[in-house]
Amino acid sequence: MPQLRIALAQVNATVGDLDGNSALVVEWTRKAAEAGAHLVVFPEMVLTSYPVEDLAIRTSFARASRAALEDLAVALDEAGLGSVAAFVGFLDHDSAGPRNAASVLHGGRVVATQYKHHLPNYGVFDERRYFKPGDELDVVRINGVEVGMVICEDLWQDGGPISALGAAGVDVVVSPNASPYERKKDDVRLPLVARRAAEAGAPLAYCNLIGGQDELVFDGDSLVVGRDGVLLARAPQFVEHLMVMDLSVPGGSYESGAFGDFTVERITISEAGPAYEPLPAPRIFEPLSDEAEVWYALVTGLRDYVHKNGFRSVVFGLSGGIDSAVVAALAVDALGPDAVHAVSLPSSYSSEHSKSDAFEMAQRTGIHYSVEPIADMVSAFVSQLSLTGLAEENIQARCRGMALMALSNQHGHLVLATGNKSELSVGYSTIYGDAVGGFAPIKDVFKTLVWDLARWRNDEAFKRGETPPIPENSITKPPSAELRPGQVDTDSLPDYALLDDLLDDYVEGDRGYDDLIAAGFAPELVDRVLRMVDKAEYKRRQYPPGTKISNKAFGRDRRLPITNAWREG
Amino acid sequence: MPQLRIALAQVNATVGDLDGNSALVVEWTRKAAEAGAHLVVFPEMVLTSYPVEDLAIRTSFARASRAALEDLAVALDEAGLGSVAAFVGFLDHDSAGPRNAASVLHGGRVVATQYKHHLPNYGVFDERRYFKPGDELDVVRINGVEVGMVICEDLWQDGGPISALGAAGVDVVVSPNASPYERKKDDVRLPLVARRAAEAGAPLAYCNLIGGQDELVFDGDSLVVGRDGVLLARAPQFVEHLMVMDLSVPGGSYESGAFGDFTVERITISEAGPAYEPLPAPRIFEPLSDEAEVWYALVTGLRDYVHKNGFRSVVFGLSGGIDSAVVAALAVDALGPDAVHAVSLPSSYSSEHSKSDAFEMAQRTGIHYSVEPIADMVSAFVSQLSLTGLAEENIQARCRGMALMALSNQHGHLVLATGNKSELSVGYSTIYGDAVGGFAPIKDVFKTLVWDLARWRNDEAFKRGETPPIPENSITKPPSAELRPGQVDTDSLPDYALLDDLLDDYVEGDRGYDDLIAAGFAPELVDRVLRMVDKAEYKRRQYPPGTKISNKAFGRDRRLPITNAWREG
Repeated sequence: MPQLRIALAQVNATVGDLDGNSALVVEWTRKAAEAGAHLVVFPEMVLTSYPVEDLAIRTSFARASRAALEDLAVALDEAGLGSVAAFVGFLDHDSAGPRNAASVLHGGRVVATQYKHHLPNYGVFDERRYFKPGDELDVVRINGVEVGMVICEDLWQDGGPISALGAAGVDVVVSPNASPYERKKDDVRLPLVARRAAEAGAPLAYCNLIGGQDELVFDGDSLVVGRDGVLLARAPQFVEHLMVMDLSVPGGSYESGAFGDFTVERITISEAGPAYEPLPAPRIFEPLSDEAEVWYALVTGLRDYVHKNGFRSVVFGLSGGIDSAVVAALAVDALGPDAVHAVSLPSSYSSEHSKSDAFEMAQRTGIHYSVEPIADMVSAFVSQLSLTGLAEENIQARCRGMALMALSNQHGHLVLATGNKSELSVGYSTIYGDAVGGFAPIKDVFKTLVWDLARWRNDEAFKRGETPPIPENSITKPPSAELRPGQVDTDSLPDYALLDDLLDDYVEGDRGYDDLIAAGFAPELVDRVLRMVDKAEYKRRQYPPGTKISNKAFGRDRRLPITNAWREG
Repeated sequence: MPQLRIALAQVNATVGDLDGNSALVVEWTRKAAEAGAHLVVFPEMVLTSYPVEDLAIRTSFARASRAALEDLAVALDEAGLGSVAAFVGFLDHDSAGPRNAASVLHGGRVVATQYKHHLPNYGVFDERRYFKPGDELDVVRINGVEVGMVICEDLWQDGGPISALGAAGVDVVVSPNASPYERKKDDVRLPLVARRAAEAGAPLAYCNLIGGQDELVFDGDSLVVGRDGVLLARAPQFVEHLMVMDLSVPGGSYESGAFGDFTVERITISEAGPAYEPLPAPRIFEPLSDEAEVWYALVTGLRDYVHKNGFRSVVFGLSGGIDSAVVAALAVDALGPDAVHAVSLPSSYSSEHSKSDAFEMAQRTGIHYSVEPIADMVSAFVSQLSLTGLAEENIQARCRGMALMALSNQHGHLVLATGNKSELSVGYSTIYGDAVGGFAPIKDVFKTLVWDLARWRNDEAFKRGETPPIPENSITKPPSAELRPGQVDTDSLPDYALLDDLLDDYVEGDRGYDDLIAAGFAPELVDRVLRMVDKAEYKRRQYPPGTKISNKAFGRDRRLPITNAWREG
């Protein structure tokens, strides 16, 4: 039976960095060549990275992307890698408009090019804004094995390219992807890929991007499934990884022509060489647990936002509460303690434990720690503008925000906002106060999950024989904004377990009033919480970006008008 | 020849306000009935207003919209208006998904329903995210006249419904629209409508929404064009208006059936009644001049954002400079002087004229005016955090922002940000400083246009024999942020005339480096300005919403990644 040694390069590309991403392709193609692979598959649009958003419609960028692809084909050949068939995604542009494209580079030339057919235009995706769909499929014959390709969404939608390749007959299907992380998404990926392999009647090799891009994070989880749906190999999540394996396929010879709505073109690169000793079966990495998966998604999203935007350090307010404690622990895992600057900004309402818990957190993790009381700043505003009530509460939060921005200006740190998704949903945050920052690491994490993550991270430390980063008291004490004497969150919010259940149904589930009542929530609770969520839209619009981990994060995922008279119920 | 008296109701609906918008339809249908109209056409999706964004995919809202339409049919009949055929747009939902729909209500029933076919998915539009296209056209026979309908984009795209109606034969075409204002758009509207009338071989009646919705403003400009392309009637811009006119058409009898990709259904409401004396030809309002058009767009956008979000008053920093002066004049025209609260927030670097010009502006317009020196607030931060340079400059802008937010909290005013598009493009603004606010009235106005608008508004006042609102010195003095002694904008920015030309080509024209050089801009200027624009994306992401007047406003119109290594050149 014909043999094929395939490599999947699960890499971390940077949006817009054509030179850097080209170098990345050369580097990982070399690794694949060293492993003796016949072909190497890179993620969707690896050359531009993903998503490029409106750069897709800027002609100068599309031209540069196309030119970079052709230069890359030559560069690979000049590096002595021309004999490996490299499947490289990029932004193309023709008379019909921009294209989400992938080419096969071999022998210094672009030997095949295919355009994505199904263009996702839901959730965070706007691909119909950018791309024209393709209906030609290039099947490339490598070492006597017929290799077809489907790009990302073409794998998720029923019908389309996969069925056409099945009808046309292929020996192997490869699929470049840029599939953003969401909780539990990896649970659906494997069954989907298995089903498509059966439809194609061929093994299917799925290669996904890793790394953070603004609000998105890609988890990798690349995998190979046999034509019988059996999992043959699986890569680890959130790390760059080269998966190499041998496939033995029945082989055969097939015709070009029209299959369904698609035209299939055959391109021969090489016929079968002599038989060789296959590699041992590759490793099947276990997917991470739910908490671990979320944790590494948040670490990766934060690390890449900081580094890809040219920052080396971060600063934030460390209150002794659970949110800033978890942000601190994430920042340490993402950037190392020396890049993390925590500031305690006590007011006259700050409890003793808020200061001692913050101090203990700093001690446990070795981050930079300083204390800046805000009393003088606050009183300057309160006295001159005679502020009372909410105005006085907010000015405290805002003096903290201004102090952090000033330290950022003075020392070049990126400011992190420490708010969670429960607060952001109901507007329990002060715009230009605790909401200031360049990035908000736990923006898409409900409060109850923040606690779970804190416990999980401490348990992990125990297991590794390390000091748990988060003080127990920060996890167990009742949450409080400490903007008034004795204030606790539950003065103005329902219990977080209940609140998060409701928010999960309303914000992520998009369920209406009757549904929510039928689900067992009290009418007065539904009324109150939904009003809070609807009224806070203007605050969310000015909130910093943060890593998406849910099926519906605030931002591109959930586009609601600010001016909106619709009220459920 | 059969006669038809048509009414176009150019109204201001509110997103999500099903009850209020239903009442609006009843009120304006009554006006149409009083004028003896056979039919009245309302704007696209008038029942939900436009755009509803992700409310379109919330099933509870789609159901409520459908129910509101049926209730409205009954309500119109019970109000004695059942004899007028009302063309009412709404959000529908069927097994295929949400629909951008319009129905004909008559005699207490929904007698016809049609779905939009061409779904715009560019610029600010995401309709392919929401709607499934329709391919059935309902032609309604009213007083013996066959009336076809095309919804908004179906008018702008070649082919499609218009050609089908032309082939099927109709006597009159009506078109409900929600077409957002852009400078010079009205210049293309008339020729387009004239061309489509010729394609349909029938008079075409175009009805557009008016009013503000977050960043969009709708200008009305409803019009009727004869089958020969001659303009018969044109409504004024930015005001609610009922246009009523008589049409005499050859008439004829036509078949239902398939025409191109469309199925045409015939529904008879009434056969021709006795001949009657037509109304005198309606007025053809002249479109506004460019400055007037922009001014009323900004006034309308600001007024509706404030009122539709439940605010009664606004507050902002009045610096004596041109930007805040123009914002003040806009606020007075939008809300009246008593709803406008201007605050002078002088620092040690503020010039004498900045205070005297601000004071004079307040005197000329009769707005509320107060002075709050920021020296104490600033020194509290500077001394405690030992701030210098940029950090010290920014803390001044931020103390102003915090002071305005505190006054907003204390008195319930909406804070206005006074930044212009030139500053926002190059990032010449302080995030959480001069950038704070719930709304930014001149966010999409380049600095050179800000000056033009100021001169235009003062000239208008002269013509009306009123006091020009804007002090001459605010228009003529060199712009300065006054954050250090003797600072002027041109220390760090090119001359605004040159800068705005370049920004117009790069931001709105999306032109690449080579194009810009070819257009005659100096390479070092292009390098410098493009870097500034690209680097400021993160600031724009947290900037308040503001009225779109250009073909590419920051926001939904221009979606670029923050993390972006692409550099032109």
